[in-house]
Amino acid sequence: MATSVEEITVNRQFDGYNRRYKHRSSVLGCDMTFTVYFPAAAEKGKVPVLYYLSGLTCTDENFIQKSGAQRMAAARGVALVAPDTSPRGLGVEGEADSWDFGVGAGFYVNATQEKWRAWRMYDYVVEELPALLRTASPFASSLDPDRASIFGHSMGGHGALIVGLKNPQSYRSISAFAPICNPTNVPWGVKAFTGYLGEDKEAWKQYDACELMRGFAGDVKPPILVDTGSADKFLEVQLQPQALEGAIKDSGYSPATLRMQEGYDHSYFFISTFIDDHINFHADALLVGHEA
Amino acid sequence: MATSVEEITVNRQFDGYNRRYKHRSSVLGCDMTFTVYFPAAAEKGKVPVLYYLSGLTCTDENFIQKSGAQRMAAARGVALVAPDTSPRGLGVEGEADSWDFGVGAGFYVNATQEKWRAWRMYDYVVEELPALLRTASPFASSLDPDRASIFGHSMGGHGALIVGLKNPQSYRSISAFAPICNPTNVPWGVKAFTGYLGEDKEAWKQYDACELMRGFAGDVKPPILVDTGSADKFLEVQLQPQALEGAIKDSGYSPATLRMQEGYDHSYFFISTFIDDHINFHADALLVGHEA
Repeated sequence: MATSVEEITVNRQFDGYNRRYKHRSSVLGCDMTFTVYFPAAAEKGKVPVLYYLSGLTCTDENFIQKSGAQRMAAARGVALVAPDTSPRGLGVEGEADSWDFGVGAGFYVNATQEKWRAWRMYDYVVEELPALLRTASPFASSLDPDRASIFGHSMGGHGALIVGLKNPQSYRSISAFAPICNPTNVPWGVKAFTGYLGEDKEAWKQYDACELMRGFAGDVKPPILVDTGSADKFLEVQLQPQALEGAIKDSGYSPATLRMQEGYDHSYFFISTFIDDHINFHADALLVGHEA
Repeated sequence: MATSVEEITVNRQFDGYNRRYKHRSSVLGCDMTFTVYFPAAAEKGKVPVLYYLSGLTCTDENFIQKSGAQRMAAARGVALVAPDTSPRGLGVEGEADSWDFGVGAGFYVNATQEKWRAWRMYDYVVEELPALLRTASPFASSLDPDRASIFGHSMGGHGALIVGLKNPQSYRSISAFAPICNPTNVPWGVKAFTGYLGEDKEAWKQYDACELMRGFAGDVKPPILVDTGSADKFLEVQLQPQALEGAIKDSGYSPATLRMQEGYDHSYFFISTFIDDHINFHADALLVGHEA
């Protein structure tokens, strides 16, 4: 079956283009949108791919409109790929009743509970989307998904950490803004994992960054960068960066840099302040041997 | 009467703060919101003020969330002040029937038609807001409104041009993204000016940048910078930068730079691409003799 995507909007920015697409996801069983920022460098040769996973309630548009990431992505010649945060339009009963579960809240897991069987955002991000970028026009000629890194915010910071730690051979660097570090032990994570994965907490551990960090056995260790704001209202109850810090110490994982940013909150104002650091962190990993 | 403002949100960004305020406008007769970005430099002394006037349908938030202006404003030590685009909540019949007239569409004029008598955004921007910044806490100790410049987008680009050209002693530089250059001759302007100012087209000329440019007699000529995108869907019918170019030639006004940016549209993706140029243009005018 031919894979195809429909371009639904295009906006020029920093000499490149934001292009928003719609495609039929076979993994999720619904139409999905995602946005790619193509730097001008993509017109001359294949550029590496930096995936960004968004937080609760977001679509692919929040990051594209508010982060300011395109400026440095253009300067470094890295493409940005921003997927949506859940299946949409399936009409599962109650799918839109909560802002932290169902629509806009896929948590980047593969659900095992029958009712939520379409919620397979892990496979969508790790398998389907990279395959699409490898094969479909116009990506195949401009992107190099074999050079990929991943980052995200909040729920998407959790997503970036687990996707990266479970596939260290596929992502050259991992970073997060205000990630949910230990979802098996915080209200957002417990609600989502109970709903998508059932009551058996053993099944949850495969999607918890702290558990994955403690059990990490890969030969390749992608560098990790995490920024969290000290004024983030979700810091203590939902994010718990100290849990990840402890897991990193226990595992001896290196290099990993966790920073607390004084006075910053959970918003895109925080993200935009440190986005250049993150883009450069990933570009340094992605462009080894490729920059002039 | 004491002037006071209520801070309704605060978000740290680039070592400074976005602070959104609500206050009672005596000019407009309603509560108004506006946002100020305070660079860190404002904690050490008074910083100059750069006003940004927004386009149709916008509030003060679009610019603050999407332009990326704070990064360079922080670096140069310039405060950003973003007002709303019209009175709100007055309940004038039909005020929200059109996206290009009434609420969100004040066009920065003082209305003379009885029904729209509250629409006095010109006086609000030129008189009331600067007076508030001079006198109310916390502005009086951190901002220097006697060093001010102005810019804006679309309807707000028109606003910046007319406000600056009518008050060249009060604004040290003027710039615009995709401004409505000749509102007396284009559909948006004709609709707004007919509604707010009545049928007499002579009364419209005081709010038309091309007319003001041709009649300009000030001793001080603030430098002008205008960027417009060649792919802007409003370019031919509504914006008409060539009309302003003609008026500048006729008047001999200098310095004025009008640029056509190839492939860019009317969105904040366009604004964000050239925002650094505009911030630096204004900072150069505002900081003469003040930078180390």
